[in-house]
Amino acid sequence: MKANEGTVKDVSLPADPSSLQAALESERALVDRELNRILPPEDDYPTSIHRAMRYSVFAGGKRLRPILCVDAGRLFGAEEQPLLRIAATLELIHTYSLIHDDLPALDNDELRRGKPTCHRVFGEATAILAGDALLTLAFENLAAAGPPSDGARLRVVRELARAIGTRNGMLAGEVVDLETTGRAVDVSTLEFIHSAKTGALITAAVRCGAIYANAAESDLKRLTAYGQKVGLAFQIADDLLDVLGSREAMGKAVGKDGHQQKPTYPGLYGVEESQRIAELLVAEASQALSTYGERAQRLIEIAHFLITRRN
Amino acid sequence: MKANEGTVKDVSLPADPSSLQAALESERALVDRELNRILPPEDDYPTSIHRAMRYSVFAGGKRLRPILCVDAGRLFGAEEQPLLRIAATLELIHTYSLIHDDLPALDNDELRRGKPTCHRVFGEATAILAGDALLTLAFENLAAAGPPSDGARLRVVRELARAIGTRNGMLAGEVVDLETTGRAVDVSTLEFIHSAKTGALITAAVRCGAIYANAAESDLKRLTAYGQKVGLAFQIADDLLDVLGSREAMGKAVGKDGHQQKPTYPGLYGVEESQRIAELLVAEASQALSTYGERAQRLIEIAHFLITRRN
Repeated sequence: MKANEGTVKDVSLPADPSSLQAALESERALVDRELNRILPPEDDYPTSIHRAMRYSVFAGGKRLRPILCVDAGRLFGAEEQPLLRIAATLELIHTYSLIHDDLPALDNDELRRGKPTCHRVFGEATAILAGDALLTLAFENLAAAGPPSDGARLRVVRELARAIGTRNGMLAGEVVDLETTGRAVDVSTLEFIHSAKTGALITAAVRCGAIYANAAESDLKRLTAYGQKVGLAFQIADDLLDVLGSREAMGKAVGKDGHQQKPTYPGLYGVEESQRIAELLVAEASQALSTYGERAQRLIEIAHFLITRRN
Repeated sequence: MKANEGTVKDVSLPADPSSLQAALESERALVDRELNRILPPEDDYPTSIHRAMRYSVFAGGKRLRPILCVDAGRLFGAEEQPLLRIAATLELIHTYSLIHDDLPALDNDELRRGKPTCHRVFGEATAILAGDALLTLAFENLAAAGPPSDGARLRVVRELARAIGTRNGMLAGEVVDLETTGRAVDVSTLEFIHSAKTGALITAAVRCGAIYANAAESDLKRLTAYGQKVGLAFQIADDLLDVLGSREAMGKAVGKDGHQQKPTYPGLYGVEESQRIAELLVAEASQALSTYGERAQRLIEIAHFLITRRN
């Protein structure tokens, strides 16, 4: 699996897109199999909440966070099965945040990944509890006994809890996003929202994969830089798709950010400048991993892919 | 602190109620100090969610779960500071469940512990996120590095996550409670609701305190029996107070369970038989700890206190 560690070649350009697509597809299938393993069966009592949890988790999605976690773990030789388990928990956490975000009291979204949102199908009460349940199930699985060590597992629980908490984590981003909707914001506030709401979990995804491989602190530092840049580039690309994409391709209401006057990069910088910033971030993310040469090829390809995708 | 381990005396009757009250008050103060230490300050950015979190945590409350955790840990000689930290996280988890339970989409309660509920003060969106944040902060603190060991801490994360999850845990109880409101239920369903919604976290509280003291599996088994009995007795007492108590003493709407046709013990068994069942459960809980003699006096007193309290 590992390339010759001595080789350093130019990895700033993505490889054959169709081969990347196939690789992502295969990793997504592994993650989905693991999600299926750790989610309670639909007919487990009480069934309504288990149906709601599975509905939202399997309503689609790129599995970006789990895939980043897996590829960061593989870069440093993490054992495959525990790595997949932690990768799957990242998707549980991401799905919890989407379910709660979509609620009538928050973004009031009716479509997500091309399907009716959880609360539209199961009602608001079940949707709230299903989000709670996915978050709880994530921590239960993160805390499972097993490799690599109790210490590494505990550290991952701590890192992820911080990444999704109220101090610069996902919840902080959600709160500021909600509070600033409909108001003019400056660049630093917009950057805070994006780095907290999206960047923190993406950064934690790559870091936690590497922690499972007992990567050195210097490696974690490089992955942090990569995660932060990629997270922001991903969010800018998302904002751009909201402006440019079609409803069909995105599977959710588009043009909604502008309609709700959500702060966005295209709103502040315009489309072209936003694209330029995203490309620059991806270049910087690639640069952060240059020391690994070919071994980091996949992570770099993913970074490029994220800003060229159509949905 | 420890009594002579050889002494076994009759501990089935509570000691002087005023001295128990003073002891509970002092433990509550310790727990509150720890909660104050681990909750982000109100003026931490973004302030709205930190204000909401603190509002609900410090809106009152008996701190029953933390106190049970502390007393179970002390019974087996747990180190005080890590024990208090895990005890405080139990209150974070309990408060998260109350905030979400009170939401308009769920129980739609306007008063809790004598004060307006979180969503009444801060709005529904902030209340949903504040609940999420308390749950997340709980896991962050449970996963802190430190004594007694990484293995014990990891086990506590796992035990608590299960206790509040959808398979026989708190969330399962909430879901079935919601689904059966307004419908006739049989005794086994009512027992499931109570044991899942209240019993599981109370049982986890005593177990986790003991795990922090490296208690043996045989000890954990006895505490499990104690926790399950006490949890059910506590819930029956709560149901009885809802029927008999005054709105002033309870600090929340009373008679509401009957009004909403929530399944309750008094509803199924009548008041007197419910009281008898609660007393029997407390006697059984005390019996489960008889092997510890005087050392378990506090836990036994608390069990008695729970079914004689007025609010």
